[in-house]
Parts: sequence; C-alpha cells; structure tokens
Amino acid sequence: MKKFHKPNTSSSDNKNQPLIIYGRHAVLSALKNPKRKIQKLLITAENKAEIEKIAPHVPFSIIDKKDFNKILPEDAVHQGFALYCTRLESYDIADLVEMAKDKKRCCILILDQVTDPQNIGAIIRSCAAFDALGLIVQDKNSPLESGAMDKAAAGTIEFVPIARVTNLSRTIETLKENGFWVMGMDGYAETTIDKINKDGKIAIVMGSEGKGMRRLVQENCDSSVKLPISPSVESLNVSTAAAITLYELSKQ
Amino acid sequence: MKKFHKPNTSSSDNKNQPLIIYGRHAVLSALKNPKRKIQKLLITAENKAEIEKIAPHVPFSIIDKKDFNKILPEDAVHQGFALYCTRLESYDIADLVEMAKDKKRCCILILDQVTDPQNIGAIIRSCAAFDALGLIVQDKNSPLESGAMDKAAAGTIEFVPIARVTNLSRTIETLKENGFWVMGMDGYAETTIDKINKDGKIAIVMGSEGKGMRRLVQENCDSSVKLPISPSVESLNVSTAAAITLYELSKQ
Repeated sequence: MKKFHKPNTSSSDNKNQPLIIYGRHAVLSALKNPKRKIQKLLITAENKAEIEKIAPHVPFSIIDKKDFNKILPEDAVHQGFALYCTRLESYDIADLVEMAKDKKRCCILILDQVTDPQNIGAIIRSCAAFDALGLIVQDKNSPLESGAMDKAAAGTIEFVPIARVTNLSRTIETLKENGFWVMGMDGYAETTIDKINKDGKIAIVMGSEGKGMRRLVQENCDSSVKLPISPSVESLNVSTAAAITLYELSKQ
Repeated sequence: MKKFHKPNTSSSDNKNQPLIIYGRHAVLSALKNPKRKIQKLLITAENKAEIEKIAPHVPFSIIDKKDFNKILPEDAVHQGFALYCTRLESYDIADLVEMAKDKKRCCILILDQVTDPQNIGAIIRSCAAFDALGLIVQDKNSPLESGAMDKAAAGTIEFVPIARVTNLSRTIETLKENGFWVMGMDGYAETTIDKINKDGKIAIVMGSEGKGMRRLVQENCDSSVKLPISPSVESLNVSTAAAITLYELSKQ
C-alpha cells in the first residue's frame, strides 16, 4: 500500500513552527479557550476596543495592517487579528469512546489522507454545526493545526474533539468493538447516505478527493455508502461531501 | 440600502482581463465545450499525451512547470494545464424560465452579494451535483468568471446555466410570476430546509456569510428557511450551506 502514502506533512519538524491563528472568529474563540497557552496577540488599532471587552486580561500589541503580511501568508484574511499560541492537544481514541459510552446515537468522522488544511478546517466547522462527537485523522498523513485550518474552522476547533491516531485500521477496530457501525464513503457504494439506518453509533470514513480511502482502511469498514449525486459529476469536494453527510446523519 | 452594497467587483474593467483556466478537470472540460473560443493552451510535457487524446485538434505549447507561476496566482494548483479562452456568456432569466416551463419540480439558486470566486465555483459544482436548473447572481456584486472560480467548479461551469442579472428583486418577481416559490435562506427563519414542501419549482436566495441578503431582496421572498445547525455555531460557509440546501431539495 506504500504508493498510497502521502508525504509526511505532519511530522515533528512542523511541530516546532509556531502556530499563528488569524481572523476575528478564530482568534476570539482561541482567546476564550483555557486550553491554549497565549504567547502573543497582535491586532490593528481598530480592534483594540473589541479585545479589551472580550479578553481584558490578555496583553496585546498594536501593529499596522501592512505588518501582518510579514508574519502571515500573503492572502490571509486576518481582519487585524493574529495570535501566537500553543496548538490544541490531540484527544485519544479512548476519550472519544468514553464520550460515546452513554449515548444512544452519535457520529464520528474519520479522514484518511485528507491533506488540505482549509478542507480540514471546513470539516471541523461542519462537525460543530451538526454535533458530531469528534473527528479522527491519521497523524502521519494529516497536517498539523495551522492558521489556515483554524481560519476555515471559524473558531469551532476550540470545541470539536480531534484525535490524531497512529493506525486508522486499528482505530476502526476499536470503534467497532465499542459498538460503532463503521461506514466508508465510496462513490461506487450501492447505498446512499439518506437510506441508511441512522440509529446507534456511526463512524464515517472519508478519503481524499483524488485518492479516496486506502484499501486496507476500506476493507476494515462494516459497509460502504455514497452521496446521491448526478452522474454528470464525478465527485464532490471532500469538505462538501463531509458537510452533507454530517447534516444527513444529524437528522432525526 | 446603499450601505449594503459591495464594491463593484465585476465591472467592465475586469472583462478586458483574459480568462486563464487552470487545473486538469477545469481545462479538459473547457476544451470539450464548443461555446468556448480557445485562444492558447499551455501544458507541461507530461500532459501532452492526455491532451492529444482528449483534444486532438487543439494546438498547444509545452512550457516548464516554473513558467506557470508567471501567468497564474502563486498558489494556483494548475497540474500543468493553463488555457486562455473566452468567458461563458450569461444566460437570461427568460432562458431559465423557459427551461423550467415543462418541469413539475426544479430548483434555482440565487446568490446575493457572494463575492468569493472559490465559494461561487464550489456552489456551481454543487448545482451540477444536485441537478439544479441554474444559478442566478447579480451582475454588479458578483465576480466575473475567473481561473479560481473555474478550478473550484472542477469543470462543472461548462454545463450549469448561470444568469447574471441587473436587479435581483425584479428577477425574483419574474420567477414568482412563472410559478416559482422563492425562499430566502435566513438563520432566524422558523422553518428548517428538511421540513419544507419540495414539490414544484423552488428558488432559494442565499446572502453572503457576513452580510446576508439585502433587506429588499429578503422582503421579496415568499418565505424564509434555515439549516438546522447547532446553536454553538453561528453560521456555515455559504458554499457549505448551498451544498446542503441543494442536496436536501434534490431528494425525492
């Protein structure tokens, strides 16, 4: 299965790079999260009053709009907010299993080889919007928390449990042993997502747009399921597909 | 309502800028569309065989990967394909009404003040995936077709009818006169999208994430509707919201 492995984009060499969260929603939400260690907050003068109201105890420096471009990607929509802080710690799979224990119904989303930070951020936002229990990614083929990811998550990364696991197949086994029905999202599946039994505990595995799930991961699923899309369209963007899936599974 | 107007991002000064479509899906789909006038096709050597198979009559030049960065945005995922060609012409609202005439059930999506080209491209892709009849945008507050938009649409812009109209309120009136029930997407609505009657002809109006619909547009709608999202999340990205809405409306 080697050929399906993405380059290691989340290795420890990246962990030493500081996290800079930017954008109003993302920064204000991070400031309210006691799990973050705040290192430095940079804002434009126009945001001073807002910060003093929302996070009165956090020291800040005021910098010019043009100086944000020195620390952020060129096209970053920062809205005059940049926060240096620690990354959120990964949950363990045991944490998610424990959280699911007393629930009659819940949903966990598992991503295999989804590497675009913006897609992952958008998926975190959908997890929050549709009350998913949590998100699972494979540590070595998933990017670390970044400014672009947090921006796309629009503040929701602060409260969506995310587990970075070493081995997805083993994680799927653990979920099954704990009462989860694990479904792989696959364009060739016979069943569409609106037709499945939504009771109980469900985990959905989604692969990347280009490559899909790795075969071994797919083989570990209990069943496969697809979105009912027009034959004229090959696939959906993974964050769009995730949003629709989480929406459908959240319905009573 | 002046204060709600976005800066004119689609004015004629942009129309003089050439359209450069990039990315495999977007370029290959454009090459198959007889409505496009092809001006120049640039590819990397590795894509030669594919182009000769799919578009044998189209002349091309082979350039180095690094030379793509001279003509495309720095972060453009071009995959070794760049196509200079004409923009697709706008449909008239009368075209869409005519296409809807004999249909018992159909859906049109209307965007008010959605200005991000990637969001619009993603929405076009969802229109294709869920067989929307077409998309309507207001000419003066919507960006022109661009490489970024076409990339996000992943080739689907070639067959999704898009009407650029001058006045959205008048367009909504025309749709109503022609049997459409027009619903505005509004987070404060009482009815959720899964509870509406999906029979008949439906037009859904969506505003931008920050500003929403303009009041006058909203007042012209027959009713309003929302997505059932968790109270912990303020809103969804407009392209995510559009995808879920189109999915829900496509269901039998």
